[in-house]
Formats: sequence, structure tokens, C-alpha cells
Amino acid sequence: MDATQHNDEQARPGSAHGYIKARDKELVQNRLKRIEGQVRGVQRMVDQEAYCVDVLTQIASVVSALEKVGTILLKDHVEHCLRESIEKGEDADEKIEELTAAVERFLRV
Amino acid sequence: MDATQHNDEQARPGSAHGYIKARDKELVQNRLKRIEGQVRGVQRMVDQEAYCVDVLTQIASVVSALEKVGTILLKDHVEHCLRESIEKGEDADEKIEELTAAVERFLRV
Amino acid sequence: MDATQHNDEQARPGSAHGYIKARDKELVQNRLKRIEGQVRGVQRMVDQEAYCVDVLTQIASVVSALEKVGTILLKDHVEHCLRESIEKGEDADEKIEELTAAVERFLRV
Amino acid sequence: MDATQHNDEQARPGSAHGYIKARDKELVQNRLKRIEGQVRGVQRMVDQEAYCVDVLTQIASVVSALEKVGTILLKDHVEHCLRESIEKGEDADEKIEELTAAVERFLRV
Repeated sequence: MDATQHNDEQARPGSAHGYIKARDKELVQNRLKRIEGQVRGVQRMVDQEAYCVDVLTQIASVVSALEKVGTILLKDHVEHCLRESIEKGEDADEKIEELTAAVERFLRV
Repeated sequence: MDATQHNDEQARPGSAHGYIKARDKELVQNRLKRIEGQVRGVQRMVDQEAYCVDVLTQIASVVSALEKVGTILLKDHVEHCLRESIEKGEDADEKIEELTAAVERFLRV
Repeated sequence: MDATQHNDEQARPGSAHGYIKARDKELVQNRLKRIEGQVRGVQRMVDQEAYCVDVLTQIASVVSALEKVGTILLKDHVEHCLRESIEKGEDADEKIEELTAAVERFLRV
Repeated sequence: MDATQHNDEQARPGSAHGYIKARDKELVQNRLKRIEGQVRGVQRMVDQEAYCVDVLTQIASVVSALEKVGTILLKDHVEHCLRESIEKGEDADEKIEELTAAVERFLRV
């Protein structure tokens, strides 16, 4: 699944919207920019024939950084979207299903 | 650990060099460019307040793509660097130690 | 943290209780018994000097089975405990914090 | 894949054998016995309706313990089996393929 698909999807009228807290949004964007820089750094390492083990270490560090961003988004999602849905009694089952499916995709079980 | 550090490190005289196969180098760079694009896609999704669960799905997909790149590099490392070191009887213990440490960083054990 | 500690903890008067659905409880116990058998199988393989790669494959399969059990429990937890806590407006923040901490422990971020 | 299958497989005449170092064999068996005890502990927690989040924490701890055992076996495999195969120039490609496949199964990429 690529970003373009998702951008289309999210632009559809009436689609669900994200509830990233304003404070977390900046934090998340800063982390994502840093992650983008790290990915470019890995490209440079490959270009310059850096030692494989150093490239692997750097990739493992990008993976951790991405998963950390994932847990920030997950928390915001539970705090806002899932909570609101349960409080209003709207679509709670669907939201819970979605949440556990998202966690399963992370754990790849 | 950031990319800059690594670039410095790898530039040190006499440092070990990578053994990414020519064929894999292009494959790896293409994948890394795609991953960079995916990370920017995630930034756009966050900006446009895409649905959290879609952002999470996209992040999980970037993580998988990075780990796939990691296993390509790992294989090249074993096939070239580790193999050569064992064949020459040079630094084999150190290389094996390094390899298992790299796998441990991926598994975070 | 070992099981004994947890058993003590869970036995404390007034402690929170689990909300594993009756149907899932049997499913989870069957899976855990199977996992216990797999762990004993791995011990036998090590005793009989089975091929390392086969032992590793078997261990990876036990890890997947455990994470699957984890996601079943997670879902029950969200469906019952977290949901009830949000509906009653009691300790919802604490429950959400706990949930994301549990997911983080699984991802080891 | 279950343990029985593997035991059969490993008993086939002429099959490859494990190279777990004597010192590591005891360490690995002790860890596996402890892991088996932890799995039984999780069963007791589920029986006694322990708090879900505590059960999840315990499962995450068993997963880490199993992956740690996996990395010990991986290291022994590389140090003995892979090394010997490369030194003798026998089946090195196949062994390297096997090794990276085993790491991929752990990372589930």
C-alpha cells in the first residue's frame, strides 16, 4: 500500500479524520522529518559502501524510531477516536476491531 | 546514532568496507528511495489529518520494507564479508560477534 | 518479571481482574497448552542435537503463537475493561496509558 | 510446524546435526525450562483471571526470553556449522541461504 493511495483515501468526502493532538502533531512531524533524513543517510552509506553492519545498525535505529511514532499515534487514536466512539456508543465494535488489526499488523502475527 | 556519525566513521582510513553486491546495490537504493517517499507520504498524511489507523498501517508497511532491506544487506554481508573473513582465517570471531549483535539489534533482545 | 510475582500481585485484595471472554478463555488456554508442548519439543530437539536452523524455526513459530495469544487478550481487554472504564468515565486515562504501555512492551520501542 | 515433525526430521539418517556448544547447551536448556515454567505461569494467570495487562506483560517477557535463546542458537550455528561449511568449501551457499531465511522468519519480513 503506498502513500498516494492513502492520500486519495483520506481525501474522500466524509471520510474519518485523524485526531492527532496538536502537541503530538508537531512532535510526530519532527520525528518523521528526522526519520526521512535517516533514510537519506542510509542511502548515502550504501552509495559510499559503508560497512554493512553499520548500515544494518542504522536501519534498526530507523525501525525503532518509526515504531515509536506508531505508538504515539496509537495512543492519540485510543485517547480521542476510540474513546469518543465508545462514549457516543457509535461504531465502538468497529473501532476496536480496527485497533487490534493495526496492532496485529505491527506485530505481524 | 545518526547518519552523519556513520558517514564520518566509514570515512576513517583503513575502515572496513561494505560488500553489497552490484545487483543488490541498485535494488537496495531503489527500495530506500521508495521508503523515503513513503516517509514523506506519512508526513503528508499527518499534515492532512488522515485517519490514524491508515497512518499506522502505512508506518507498519515502511517498517516491513526497511526490515526487508536489512535482510538483503545481511545476506550480502554473510556471503561476502563473513565468508571471506572465515576463508582467510582473519577476524572471523569478531565478524561473527558483529553479525549476531546486528541481528540482536533488529530483534531488540 | 516472573509468573510467581504476577500470581502474588493478582491475588492482592481489590486488584483489577481480567475480562477474558469465556469463549476466548478456552481458546487461549488451548493455545497456551500447545505452546507449552512446543517449548518442551524445543527442549527435546536441543537434547537430541537437532539441526540448529530447525530449532530456530520452531522457536520463531512459538514466538508467533505467543504474540497471537497476546493480540486475543489485547482485544478482550479493549472490548471489556477499557470500554467499560470509558463508559463509566472511571480511570479511562490510566487504562489508556496502560494499554499503550503494553503495546510498547510488545514492540520493545 | 510442530516439534514432532522436527524430531522425525532430525532423526533421518545422514541429516545435519546441531552444533550447540556444550556450555551453551546447558544455558539454553535452563532458559527453556524457565520459559516452560513461565508459560505455565501464564496459564495459571488466565485461570485465575489475572488482570489482562499483567498477562500481556508476562507474555511479552516470554517472547523476549525465547528470542534471546534464538540468538544464542544463531551464534552457535554461525560459529560452528556455517564456519565449518565455509572452511571446507561444502554447501556454503546453501548454509548462508538457510541462515538468512531463519533470520527472516524471526523478523517475519
